[in-house]
Amino acid sequence: MSVSEQLEILRRGVVEILLEKDLIEKLEKSEKTGIPLRVKAGFDPTAPDLHLGHTVLLQKLRQFQQLGHEVFFLIGDFTGMIGDPTGKSETRKALTREDVLRNAETYKEQVFKVLDPVKTRVVFNSEWLSLLKASDLIGLAAKYTVARMLEREDFYKRYSNQLPISIHEFLYPLIQGYDSVALKADVELGGTDQKFNLLVGRELQREWGQNPQTVITMPLLEGLDGVNKMSKSLGNYIGINESPDDIFGKIMSISDPLMIRYYELLSDVPLSQLNNLKKGLEDGSVHPMDAKKSLGRELVARYHSAVAAVRAEENFVSRFRDNLVPDDMPVVKIPAASISGEETVLLFKVLATASLVKSNGEGRRAIQQGGVKVNSERVSDEGLEIACKGEYVLQVGKRRFAKVVFE
Amino acid sequence: MSVSEQLEILRRGVVEILLEKDLIEKLEKSEKTGIPLRVKAGFDPTAPDLHLGHTVLLQKLRQFQQLGHEVFFLIGDFTGMIGDPTGKSETRKALTREDVLRNAETYKEQVFKVLDPVKTRVVFNSEWLSLLKASDLIGLAAKYTVARMLEREDFYKRYSNQLPISIHEFLYPLIQGYDSVALKADVELGGTDQKFNLLVGRELQREWGQNPQTVITMPLLEGLDGVNKMSKSLGNYIGINESPDDIFGKIMSISDPLMIRYYELLSDVPLSQLNNLKKGLEDGSVHPMDAKKSLGRELVARYHSAVAAVRAEENFVSRFRDNLVPDDMPVVKIPAASISGEETVLLFKVLATASLVKSNGEGRRAIQQGGVKVNSERVSDEGLEIACKGEYVLQVGKRRFAKVVFE
Repeated sequence: MSVSEQLEILRRGVVEILLEKDLIEKLEKSEKTGIPLRVKAGFDPTAPDLHLGHTVLLQKLRQFQQLGHEVFFLIGDFTGMIGDPTGKSETRKALTREDVLRNAETYKEQVFKVLDPVKTRVVFNSEWLSLLKASDLIGLAAKYTVARMLEREDFYKRYSNQLPISIHEFLYPLIQGYDSVALKADVELGGTDQKFNLLVGRELQREWGQNPQTVITMPLLEGLDGVNKMSKSLGNYIGINESPDDIFGKIMSISDPLMIRYYELLSDVPLSQLNNLKKGLEDGSVHPMDAKKSLGRELVARYHSAVAAVRAEENFVSRFRDNLVPDDMPVVKIPAASISGEETVLLFKVLATASLVKSNGEGRRAIQQGGVKVNSERVSDEGLEIACKGEYVLQVGKRRFAKVVFE
Repeated sequence: MSVSEQLEILRRGVVEILLEKDLIEKLEKSEKTGIPLRVKAGFDPTAPDLHLGHTVLLQKLRQFQQLGHEVFFLIGDFTGMIGDPTGKSETRKALTREDVLRNAETYKEQVFKVLDPVKTRVVFNSEWLSLLKASDLIGLAAKYTVARMLEREDFYKRYSNQLPISIHEFLYPLIQGYDSVALKADVELGGTDQKFNLLVGRELQREWGQNPQTVITMPLLEGLDGVNKMSKSLGNYIGINESPDDIFGKIMSISDPLMIRYYELLSDVPLSQLNNLKKGLEDGSVHPMDAKKSLGRELVARYHSAVAAVRAEENFVSRFRDNLVPDDMPVVKIPAASISGEETVLLFKVLATASLVKSNGEGRRAIQQGGVKVNSERVSDEGLEIACKGEYVLQVGKRRFAKVVFE
């Protein structure tokens, strides 16, 4: 594959490549010499439970691997083994060597669903950093000024807002940069929030007489809501260890523009095919639901298996059909007078009123047996009362629907 | 000696004691337990050539020793052995272990003229700091915030003026503070410019569960000019390795108020005696020159010997007598007319005009032989011309003087 074709693949979805012309030179040189590029990405050593947001970076690493390059999957265990030296955070306890190795295994299990294990070198920065003496760290700290460190956006904000920054926090970007020196990285990948730290790596490599790494920043993936960054705490995520049905179902739930974004950042679908897909969606020749199904299958296949992907789609279709609310269901209006001013009314009575069941007794039994849904949600309490206002879509069994409107 | 008497001695000449009440407690405890206080002072490991400015601190340490306490003379070789990690300073090359030991010997030779070798422990901070790992230093750096470090006056000024501060400079106060932890110092002495760093030591000791050290700051000694800080580069210093005649002569040259200051900060003369001296100077019963001679003798005796002190005084007195310019010398006025409007005139002619010599020839010979002084400065060029304006005190041999006034 030509360098320009490689570049097209590597550009996909990135925010920035600093500097692209360096990357071109490196790709050309690698082609000429047959020596793969050394591509670095750093990961936190705390117990991982990856979601698709994390895999944006992995996907880019995978592309480098597919182009024949070598990925250094760096586990930043050195700082993890220090823990929180301010002693303020209960949760950031120092990790033991055993913790780190256990977490690394969990990592590998997960990332090797995206990365090629053969072209991945898992490295721990404690390998070289635990040998570093205080005097070495002082030498490292001498390479950077306080003013430049305070240019980092989060530091600047905290300093301006008089929020404390511990001095050791100034050392961490330098340590991360030194990792690039130790690994002789040609390329380092990170999220946009890592840009400052990645650039520190370039400078330190220059100080050590190395050709500075090319920095590639990847976007932070939007979560299912399409707005906020995908994160555990917001609940808008798809975990890669989630069940096939959950992964598939969540993909089906996203908006059409977000689907395109996920295709761009998460899918192996080649760019040409992705462009055709976009066109098809625009001119109506491709139905968005079909495109989502295809993405859902690809991701389930990756994190589970091809068989699981087919089954997840089948399950989804059948659930979807089951949950399908017909457009033409009967509408039953219940005048306020008929319920003599009560604020709530027993559900089984409403079912009978709407002729969904023949008697109150049948209504009770249907609820007990799990055959009744209110607004697509199954109910099980036969004594359930509903408020006498607004509308309800009621369903009994698979086929009987009615819309009830309190007037 | 009672604690309050000890305190009076220790207060002499200091700028601040932080906190004095802690010092009192420590002195009381030391008296009760018989365990001497551990008094720390740090010194630069670069080749030392001490002047009286450096001895202000040593004098205070000496007082602690005289009160029975133990002095830790700390040579900060750790940072010296790192050198200038920014690579910008040619002069701050990393010192070798041999350099450090050689410098330490030079130090000892000098400081033991003030300190009691038996009560002095010379320690090198590389002993503990070279064992420090990068991770330990990170832990140390976590104890302090960027904002607080920027409160140090010189850092603040440089940051405000957009002058670079390397991050490793933020680590040095922490390292110096950690020295106090390692030494379990009860008291640390330093110049006023060291106050910030000394206080960092207090905080780190607290973090390590130690009783924080009492900080004593000493003033920066004014040089011979009585205004600027004594320093090599300003040339206003008295080196402790200077000759007895130079030390004595320089002491005799200082102003009366500066003499009092030197007595306070450098002399062993007890406070009561010093107070009498001050009174005597005020009421005229003590001549300032006698007080200076006495100080000069004390310092020469300390840095050379008692015999050298007596000889230095004798030499001074005889030189002084030789240089004495009589109040009642003849005044010779030279009208402009007599030199027919010339701007300069040959010195030997003026000597003859003033009747200091009998002929121009005798004047020339006197100059050649080094027997002529102009304004107390010996001249040697028989062709010397002087400007025909103002006044000159001319001297030929030891006894012949004249004041020449061009009109």
